[in-house]
Amino acid sequence: MSLHIGFTGSPLDRVEPARHDPQALAALAANPAALLLDMPDYLPAAADGALAWQPFTPLPPEETLLLGLIDGIPRFARIDPAAVAAKRWPELMTLLDSLAPGEAGIYAAARSLLDWHARHRFCANCGRKTAPHHAGWARLCPDCGTEHYPRTDPVVIMLADHEGRVLVGRQPGFAAGRYSALAGFVEVGESIEEAVARELREEAGVVATSVRYVASQPWPFPSQLMIACIATVDDGTLTLDLAELEDAKWVDRAQVEAALRGDEDAVFGAPPRYAIANTLFRAWLAGK
Amino acid sequence: MSLHIGFTGSPLDRVEPARHDPQALAALAANPAALLLDMPDYLPAAADGALAWQPFTPLPPEETLLLGLIDGIPRFARIDPAAVAAKRWPELMTLLDSLAPGEAGIYAAARSLLDWHARHRFCANCGRKTAPHHAGWARLCPDCGTEHYPRTDPVVIMLADHEGRVLVGRQPGFAAGRYSALAGFVEVGESIEEAVARELREEAGVVATSVRYVASQPWPFPSQLMIACIATVDDGTLTLDLAELEDAKWVDRAQVEAALRGDEDAVFGAPPRYAIANTLFRAWLAGK
Repeated sequence: MSLHIGFTGSPLDRVEPARHDPQALAALAANPAALLLDMPDYLPAAADGALAWQPFTPLPPEETLLLGLIDGIPRFARIDPAAVAAKRWPELMTLLDSLAPGEAGIYAAARSLLDWHARHRFCANCGRKTAPHHAGWARLCPDCGTEHYPRTDPVVIMLADHEGRVLVGRQPGFAAGRYSALAGFVEVGESIEEAVARELREEAGVVATSVRYVASQPWPFPSQLMIACIATVDDGTLTLDLAELEDAKWVDRAQVEAALRGDEDAVFGAPPRYAIANTLFRAWLAGK
Repeated sequence: MSLHIGFTGSPLDRVEPARHDPQALAALAANPAALLLDMPDYLPAAADGALAWQPFTPLPPEETLLLGLIDGIPRFARIDPAAVAAKRWPELMTLLDSLAPGEAGIYAAARSLLDWHARHRFCANCGRKTAPHHAGWARLCPDCGTEHYPRTDPVVIMLADHEGRVLVGRQPGFAAGRYSALAGFVEVGESIEEAVARELREEAGVVATSVRYVASQPWPFPSQLMIACIATVDDGTLTLDLAELEDAKWVDRAQVEAALRGDEDAVFGAPPRYAIANTLFRAWLAGK
């Protein structure tokens, strides 16, 4: 199957061994062709659907993030311990609308890593200040020696299917008219399928009789792995958790098609193309 | 499909709203029928394939972990800030061999949470000491106000299939003769499918032409979400990363069947039944 999945198809070769090899890392940093993804406020420059790269000058180790290679050319970003997550959502959404999925995938890796450094400067084990390690892919505590790795939080996002209609919901913070697939974090001690069933039960009061996996994507706000599924439901009676969902409703094929087309009279506004919820609607329409 | 998947099928009703509702939590803790899963060295007592529960006496908030309800009865564990991960692997493996998957799922949730508390006593954002929060499902920093949630690290585990044979590998620490599916952490900025392809390329030098999802399980050592996939490979030539794999080889159906049966002359020792690698071999044999 060939689905458009936002943030996937990154051309980065992550050259993982170079993260642990100071000589290899130094050689990549000294390469005169090396490039920097400059991320002021986590907003890189872009043109024609692609990220814009700057010339790279070697940085101190505690600021060096090796993203990897593209076309054989080393790619870096700068770790800024004073960074704070950008609030510039309108500009960011415009950027994401413009980027090809693979370019957005490069951005996702860089943003999640830089933001993780900014929010994890201290050792969770002993409280001491830690420092970037492994070319920016870890942090090391100089006191207790604990190595810390970036978080990637798995999230299930699912369409419940009841007799050919699917369940869409809106959270209080959504843009006017926007509805999407329901979603929630996978907790410890449960599988993907169990998390899907739990979220549908908790948020909408419906019981999944089967769950099938559809696709996945990284999501860098701040650092999730989105796991998209379709669940079958035998009884469509809704009991909403109003703390989580402002509203939810069953929509049919024609209503989903109208929403994806962006029709003015669509009964809901669909999520953007770079979100896997959009992919999930298309997969459901295609019978996948 | 009906596969045996270790650690799944937990009967816990997580009653998530009670985590945020001090009155509801107090009522559950005061229920005279409430039970405690006592976990000295993370090794709970068990009999006849089921965990053994003890009478519960209300604990101070900073030691209270609400696991949820089973059969309507509140279930708790005790957060011990001085806990250290048990090294008693032989006893633990014997326990896991004996537990039904759903019972092991309860254990998985409890162990991952208790171990997370023990290893995350300080605020990663500011370094101050944090305290358990939300009935043990979070920690709160009294200084900067950051809420911290338990980690669940997604890991892909995969069988590469080349012309009807699958790739098994062994890490240096494995028991003698043991081989399993290859595995690795999903990194930021990649999908499940991309992580599978990257791990196969990095560890074995093979190129996946397609990846399909099979099943998932929680894995509490310390806290992974195992995501099992089967990948198709057109060229079976291996180039091993000897830092990750001591050996790897292609095995055919008869060899996998012999390994799963535990035949004395099997060409490899299969992973235990509670590991999803075991499920993955069975799914591959069944053509799933």
